[in-house]
Amino acid sequence: MSDLSQFLIPRGFKFGAAKAGLKQSGRTDFALIVADAAASAAAAFTANRVTAAPLTVDKEHLRATDGRVRVVAINAGNANCATGQAGLDAARATCSAIAETFNCKPEEVFPSSTGVIGVPLPTEKLIAALPDLAVSIGSEFDHFQQIASAILTTDTVEKTAFARLKITISQIDGPGEIEQEVRIAALCKGSGMIHPQLVPHATMLVYILTDAAIEPPALDTYLRDAIDVSFNRISVDGDTSTNDTVLLLASGASGVAIGAHHAEFASALTQVCTSLARQIVSDGEGITHIVELRIQGAASAADALRVAKAIAHSPLVKTAWAGCDPNWGRLLAAIGYSGANIDPNRIDVWFGELRICCDGSRAAEFDEVAAHAYLQQPEFSITIDLHQGDGSCTFWTTDLTHEYIRINADYTT
Amino acid sequence: MSDLSQFLIPRGFKFGAAKAGLKQSGRTDFALIVADAAASAAAAFTANRVTAAPLTVDKEHLRATDGRVRVVAINAGNANCATGQAGLDAARATCSAIAETFNCKPEEVFPSSTGVIGVPLPTEKLIAALPDLAVSIGSEFDHFQQIASAILTTDTVEKTAFARLKITISQIDGPGEIEQEVRIAALCKGSGMIHPQLVPHATMLVYILTDAAIEPPALDTYLRDAIDVSFNRISVDGDTSTNDTVLLLASGASGVAIGAHHAEFASALTQVCTSLARQIVSDGEGITHIVELRIQGAASAADALRVAKAIAHSPLVKTAWAGCDPNWGRLLAAIGYSGANIDPNRIDVWFGELRICCDGSRAAEFDEVAAHAYLQQPEFSITIDLHQGDGSCTFWTTDLTHEYIRINADYTT
Repeated sequence: MSDLSQFLIPRGFKFGAAKAGLKQSGRTDFALIVADAAASAAAAFTANRVTAAPLTVDKEHLRATDGRVRVVAINAGNANCATGQAGLDAARATCSAIAETFNCKPEEVFPSSTGVIGVPLPTEKLIAALPDLAVSIGSEFDHFQQIASAILTTDTVEKTAFARLKITISQIDGPGEIEQEVRIAALCKGSGMIHPQLVPHATMLVYILTDAAIEPPALDTYLRDAIDVSFNRISVDGDTSTNDTVLLLASGASGVAIGAHHAEFASALTQVCTSLARQIVSDGEGITHIVELRIQGAASAADALRVAKAIAHSPLVKTAWAGCDPNWGRLLAAIGYSGANIDPNRIDVWFGELRICCDGSRAAEFDEVAAHAYLQQPEFSITIDLHQGDGSCTFWTTDLTHEYIRINADYTT
Repeated sequence: MSDLSQFLIPRGFKFGAAKAGLKQSGRTDFALIVADAAASAAAAFTANRVTAAPLTVDKEHLRATDGRVRVVAINAGNANCATGQAGLDAARATCSAIAETFNCKPEEVFPSSTGVIGVPLPTEKLIAALPDLAVSIGSEFDHFQQIASAILTTDTVEKTAFARLKITISQIDGPGEIEQEVRIAALCKGSGMIHPQLVPHATMLVYILTDAAIEPPALDTYLRDAIDVSFNRISVDGDTSTNDTVLLLASGASGVAIGAHHAEFASALTQVCTSLARQIVSDGEGITHIVELRIQGAASAADALRVAKAIAHSPLVKTAWAGCDPNWGRLLAAIGYSGANIDPNRIDVWFGELRICCDGSRAAEFDEVAAHAYLQQPEFSITIDLHQGDGSCTFWTTDLTHEYIRINADYTT
């Protein structure tokens, strides 16, 4: 496996995971990403006004260091959310212990938690696991995969994505043009985290690493642009988590400096983020269909997104997809209450290449049997043209099934 | 049964229902409410921008007559929505035939439709049923109940509500004080209408009748005030229909004139509307729990409603209720993304009288077994205090169950 790491894993980072005893399953649940030296960092957090303690600490730390991170510490099995001052104290105590272990400032530690809400974080278990974890970290592909596994909860598969860029550099004083490599590696969890005891909650955690040298302000712009068309374009159940976190770290270990507006880097980052976003949707709780919504002809991009979200959050639409039911009337109703500017008599709908609705009424060529057959595919696309302007978006979502209810409603005391 | 009608049914109206052949079940599906003379009318319609053809016609007719209605014509089995110009033509043709039958203007007819979206309305079936229906109408309680049954779709029970007011009138030139009676009778459908073929859609239709004499402007104010705290305070699945209609008719046949700001009438009307709203929630598709949300301490009434709706629309919250799972963390997450102004550290949550969350963290007295037992009741209340101001609201909603999925996802070609 060490061969793979030569090509895939960004240089300048080490990885490791341990069993701290937070997951009832007994699996690994505490993971560290350790940069050889403090890395440039950009981060995005949930818009939920109820946020977990580590997010508060993360924001303080990024401010204090002007966007530098030495260690990312992720625990699964406990969200450290709705835990009040004790939760903040617990997150900070963990950071202090990690800083001591790795000889850095506590502010250079970026903590993340995912799991049960409202239960005190057992800091002592994390701190007890630290010494062994610190000596086991490494930079191989296997070490990276250990983290991808440790942060999972109800996810059924590990979710990673990789990109490599060849960057040609013209050297004035050197041997002419040279080609250098920049790597991006990313991992995430997200499905609708379920803990079969008290207060489960869906959470998405995403960590993206690169060995390019990028200063925090530019890194922030790259991250936001990529998020806008990836993680902000997916929905499984419409519930926004208290713990969602996306972190992008740049170690600079490739020796390749990347400034702002580097189109190839931006494109590679967006591809990595889009891949992870789609992996999250594909592993959505209980889903049987992945749906790509292509909204076009909206009065604005914001309107296109309103329409996509209304459809993606409609229980009637999502249950129809679960039944492969071509009831486009439910789509029209959701478009109607989305808040977007529309003319009901100018809406066109296609299932893949099949025109279903034309000018707001059933299309002349509508074929129920063909439409039903199309929706029986595990992945399909629905295109909606509002004929109001140039606004458009692509959005990925899922159906709503019996299995989702089973996962989230079954409660055993 | 004629005894009952003496007390419950407002004077000045006749009722009847027939089998026009729109429901696949073969049950009655075409209903008429006929006022002896044109009645004062106030109406409210869905905010959905995709609306059914009869709603367009209703609005035109109410404008043309300054709020007078002679005949309400309701068909179930076909929503006449997403049917384009043909749908408008169909609604108007039905109104013309009814106007001819009852010797009134077509503009005095108020059509309503509920059922399949996107399928042409078979006007000829409705018109063919008219002659027999016209001679069978009557003013007895039984006739009223025929309508309550004919307009149902996936509803499992008929939904009606009644109120009587004794109004004391001081007569200057007469025999002193006399007591007169005003009656209110209302019926509705709503559950999540399902038609197991093509494009089912949830729809609420509400008809409220009174024999008080009230002019349309005052009637409109009474209706809006009552709706605001009843029908606009319920949610089963968060999907806003294309056909929702609430109509209030005043025949004046009691001889009692009621002006604006009559507190007793307003209160009686609100009680009738609240009763129907709760009946709709109780008959929600597949539900096993009815939940009363009491939001208090919000920065504004609008904020209180935002919080209630976010909770009522959260699949994670609703599935937790289905499982009697006291996971208050899901409630906090929904409050957090509701858009309301909140302080996460000042949120209190009670299940009935049990305090669950205090200052945003688990309450010291939290007892999981007791909380679970409380949620096993078919009806329960959840109180949330945000400690931000005086805004409050009461809202009724339901859980989300396997049966909801079965009703809406099962598709048979």
